[in-house]
Amino acid sequence: MRFGAHLNARNQTVFRVWAPRARSVALRLDGQSHEMDSAEHGVYSLTVPRNLDGADYFYLLDGERERPDPASRFQPHGVHGPSRVVDPDAFEWGDGDWPGRPLEEYVAYELHIGTFTREGTFEAAIARLPYLRALGVTAVGIMPVAEFPGARNWGYDGVSLYAPHSAYGGPESLKRLVEACHQAGLAAILDVVYNHLGPEGNYLNEFGPYFTDRYRTPWGPALNFDGEHSDPVRRFFLDNALYWLTEYRFDALRLDAVHGIFDFSARHLLAEMADEVNAETTRQGRPLYLIAESDLNDARVVDGRARGGHAVHAQWMDDFHHSMNTALLGRGDGYLEDFGSLGDLAKAITSGFVYDGCYSKHRKRRFGNSSAHLPGERFMVCTQNHDQVANACRGQRLGVLAGFEREKLAAVLLVTAPYLPMLFQGQEYGETAPFHYFVSHTDAHLVEAVREGRRREFAAFVTGEQFADPQAESTFKASKLDWAKLDQEPHAALLRLYQRLFELRRQRESLSNCRKELTRVEFDEAQRWLVMERGSEAGDRSLVVANFSSEPCRVPYDDGGRYWELALWTGETLYGGMGEPRPEEAPFELGAWEAALYVARG
Amino acid sequence: MRFGAHLNARNQTVFRVWAPRARSVALRLDGQSHEMDSAEHGVYSLTVPRNLDGADYFYLLDGERERPDPASRFQPHGVHGPSRVVDPDAFEWGDGDWPGRPLEEYVAYELHIGTFTREGTFEAAIARLPYLRALGVTAVGIMPVAEFPGARNWGYDGVSLYAPHSAYGGPESLKRLVEACHQAGLAAILDVVYNHLGPEGNYLNEFGPYFTDRYRTPWGPALNFDGEHSDPVRRFFLDNALYWLTEYRFDALRLDAVHGIFDFSARHLLAEMADEVNAETTRQGRPLYLIAESDLNDARVVDGRARGGHAVHAQWMDDFHHSMNTALLGRGDGYLEDFGSLGDLAKAITSGFVYDGCYSKHRKRRFGNSSAHLPGERFMVCTQNHDQVANACRGQRLGVLAGFEREKLAAVLLVTAPYLPMLFQGQEYGETAPFHYFVSHTDAHLVEAVREGRRREFAAFVTGEQFADPQAESTFKASKLDWAKLDQEPHAALLRLYQRLFELRRQRESLSNCRKELTRVEFDEAQRWLVMERGSEAGDRSLVVANFSSEPCRVPYDDGGRYWELALWTGETLYGGMGEPRPEEAPFELGAWEAALYVARG
Repeated sequence: MRFGAHLNARNQTVFRVWAPRARSVALRLDGQSHEMDSAEHGVYSLTVPRNLDGADYFYLLDGERERPDPASRFQPHGVHGPSRVVDPDAFEWGDGDWPGRPLEEYVAYELHIGTFTREGTFEAAIARLPYLRALGVTAVGIMPVAEFPGARNWGYDGVSLYAPHSAYGGPESLKRLVEACHQAGLAAILDVVYNHLGPEGNYLNEFGPYFTDRYRTPWGPALNFDGEHSDPVRRFFLDNALYWLTEYRFDALRLDAVHGIFDFSARHLLAEMADEVNAETTRQGRPLYLIAESDLNDARVVDGRARGGHAVHAQWMDDFHHSMNTALLGRGDGYLEDFGSLGDLAKAITSGFVYDGCYSKHRKRRFGNSSAHLPGERFMVCTQNHDQVANACRGQRLGVLAGFEREKLAAVLLVTAPYLPMLFQGQEYGETAPFHYFVSHTDAHLVEAVREGRRREFAAFVTGEQFADPQAESTFKASKLDWAKLDQEPHAALLRLYQRLFELRRQRESLSNCRKELTRVEFDEAQRWLVMERGSEAGDRSLVVANFSSEPCRVPYDDGGRYWELALWTGETLYGGMGEPRPEEAPFELGAWEAALYVARG
Repeated sequence: MRFGAHLNARNQTVFRVWAPRARSVALRLDGQSHEMDSAEHGVYSLTVPRNLDGADYFYLLDGERERPDPASRFQPHGVHGPSRVVDPDAFEWGDGDWPGRPLEEYVAYELHIGTFTREGTFEAAIARLPYLRALGVTAVGIMPVAEFPGARNWGYDGVSLYAPHSAYGGPESLKRLVEACHQAGLAAILDVVYNHLGPEGNYLNEFGPYFTDRYRTPWGPALNFDGEHSDPVRRFFLDNALYWLTEYRFDALRLDAVHGIFDFSARHLLAEMADEVNAETTRQGRPLYLIAESDLNDARVVDGRARGGHAVHAQWMDDFHHSMNTALLGRGDGYLEDFGSLGDLAKAITSGFVYDGCYSKHRKRRFGNSSAHLPGERFMVCTQNHDQVANACRGQRLGVLAGFEREKLAAVLLVTAPYLPMLFQGQEYGETAPFHYFVSHTDAHLVEAVREGRRREFAAFVTGEQFADPQAESTFKASKLDWAKLDQEPHAALLRLYQRLFELRRQRESLSNCRKELTRVEFDEAQRWLVMERGSEAGDRSLVVANFSSEPCRVPYDDGGRYWELALWTGETLYGGMGEPRPEEAPFELGAWEAALYVARG
């Protein structure tokens, strides 16, 4: 970390800030101003010969404006308030010899600190980790925590990118959470936003040319990653990635919307970031990863350097979500209009991108390139996530929309497909609470703009009374998980199903690997069944049979009962089903929306 | 070509236009309106059951506005006038079995039709082709010819991208010029602009979403290559590339400023274009090429598909020009401030990009990636071109700025470096006329804007009287070549030097190949000499010794006179030198700014 406040070997506090746009910068400390020294390239620095751990400070720009440190480690009083000095070495880590987890083992669980628990804090989340571990999760994905305006926000409006949110508990609590993850054997993934900054409390432009008007993002000005003075801007974000992986010991970063990172330079920011993370992996001796959210359907995001790719370690693959959800619910609105056949789902399972260069009606252009050559561990897939629930489905979860049987069917394919599966908080027990978009801006104009934007976006689907006002605290509260459901049926049944699925995934080599090339899918678009076989003649083999229909189906597949043994069936009473007739033998007969998993005999 | 007017097999004239923004489109012909049929995706078409070759027409949009055809093959009355039907098969080609030229043989000559000859037409240029052939040129590069406003323009303000300019002679004359090139054994390169359209007469936006506001170019709105409805826009430009290579039989296209082609889609327009050009090569059985102008210093432009590149066949390499010119003239202004050492020139010769990831003071950021792995034929280099003369040097040519001796020194290294050399018209005989920027817009506001922009750009260097008004016809006329100089010394001497250099390049295998890996450069920054050795122990070898100083120099290189034989020396009387002392033997002693070329004995 080149900038911010840090303590040097002589226990002095060194302040460094890049502020080429300022005529002067002073450190405001204890009501006093201390002029900072300016060096080359707009860097200002000052060494205070004391350990200022815990002290609050501002930078005073041009003798006029008090601003928080762009690289503040803590904003105890919010985005507009002073920054606080944090000694990175003060925390005593108790995760000792945490070896990390290889990416292939990732079974991820996306959670939002504010709504995951009643308390909405890092500390409160810790209590749930044993539960996640018992469920079979191996990696906890935390939605963005960088200081955002107010106490309620998804996190994508963060502006103080090095500061864990004060309302969540701040730096020390977050470290305790990561430590607890490791102690529970869980990798910790942090969601970070490198494509824009939030609209309130963003003072970066007063310091330097962090933004550019050469490109536009839907969320605000694009970051200046390839224009004049872009080196320090890139460094700010590269350092940020390394900061979370070192000072907070995260195992992976989920990079929000990399399609909003506009970099036409000869070395893409993501490629540079992947290189630096790999070097950090070597240095720390535990595996560290970047996982991109990408709306590009461009294999180059995760392709290796030899193929000209950015070599990001994995990316989310929306086409799996879209083809699965439309297979369950029928063709949808918006981008869901591009999906709707079992053929799409089959392609998502065996190739990856469904849109690999073909024409997208929704996008009104050809879209994507092929990901068929890529191993499955380059892709993280889901059937629900914060965006899909809140945006595509207007806050409603898959189970609410599709019902219990279809939810179980989705679970089976999610966990057994040759990718890294991810759950969204509460999905494992069929939470019925909505997940809405919520903010808590303090700028009244901004609040109204967000509210109106949201209202307009959903005008066609949501009537006035149903509209969840993003600024209302009730919207936030309604989105919290209700853990009491865990003890109720059919919630507990779904939880048992997920638990057993993850167990089978770990136990069976044909399920725990991500080898797409050893995955074959057959389906019948009219009869609405789909069969996925995984594994090779030589090794372990598994078979998933799924009925995407409200009628019973008979899958014309007959091995004379010699080969396949039933390992899991969504119709079991244990999983809230009727328990009969059991589809023990081929040809497999399944009830409405049922799925069964078979393994090769002995 | 999917759009425009064409004749079908039944000798009917078919009009097709993509106009999704129009509520209706009618064909205006002979004072009559004929409503066109609309099909899917905003395509309108009409078949007139007659051969309309030579007829003029407009499209009438929304019953209100008469507009030329975006894919007009001819605009006999300028950018605002009607389009003319041209039968592509009417021209009888007389270049019979022209086999094309492999890229490695390209010795290019950039010319501007309006100033290359007194007449300023395609026809007049034909008369000069035997001269170019005798000089040793193998490829004629023609600055853009697409219809632009008025009669005088560099061509980068073209708006009717399929129509050879009316003032230059129109379609048939251009075909005669290409035919004559081929008959003279010359490849023909056309400069095309796929990053913006000119500011006057650009009606494309009335037809469809050709432009986007997501990106900005310095020259106007960026083209919509990756947004909604971008497929037909891409097709328009892909077709344009194929059009010039088929209907006009060009051998290569020089793609103007590809850094202004913003395409974040999963398949870059340039990659798609290269694929289609390669398919056309196969179809026609002669080699066709794309040569990009790129200000990215990004090897991926020309890298092959396996490395994730766009596989464009070659690109201009400005770093060669900049390092050469500053080696001759000292550090310059603007981007020339980034260059100035012999080390830069040495790196340009052996590696390619001088800025391969290092910090550029001018750009205020790190710039470029390495091109060291690329073969030399991926790069076209020059010591002068239209842009460098007119912009970097405010109209003045290298010989005028640097003098005769330095001009000869530049010539030797330009022709013997392991790249594809290119001359700018008149360079071969040391033309002293300036080359200015000129336009002939008809919109008075635009004229004033261009004039003021230009004046501002050069305010620091050019006083009022020296300022060459871009709109003035005198500026254009002053930029014309003066062929009378050919018979005068020292012009004729320089011409003889170039002729001999090209001859040696053809004759010596070590010079005609572009093998950078067999090229070694040594230099002394203080003594200001540079030695370039080319070839391998096993094959042919050459040695260039150059003195970048106004003092005589002695190159500490001694083979005892056994190995090297003098093949060319800029100090010969034949080349306008004093003729002595001849640097026959090693250690080589050269006069001020002299260069000598040696070949391995026997």
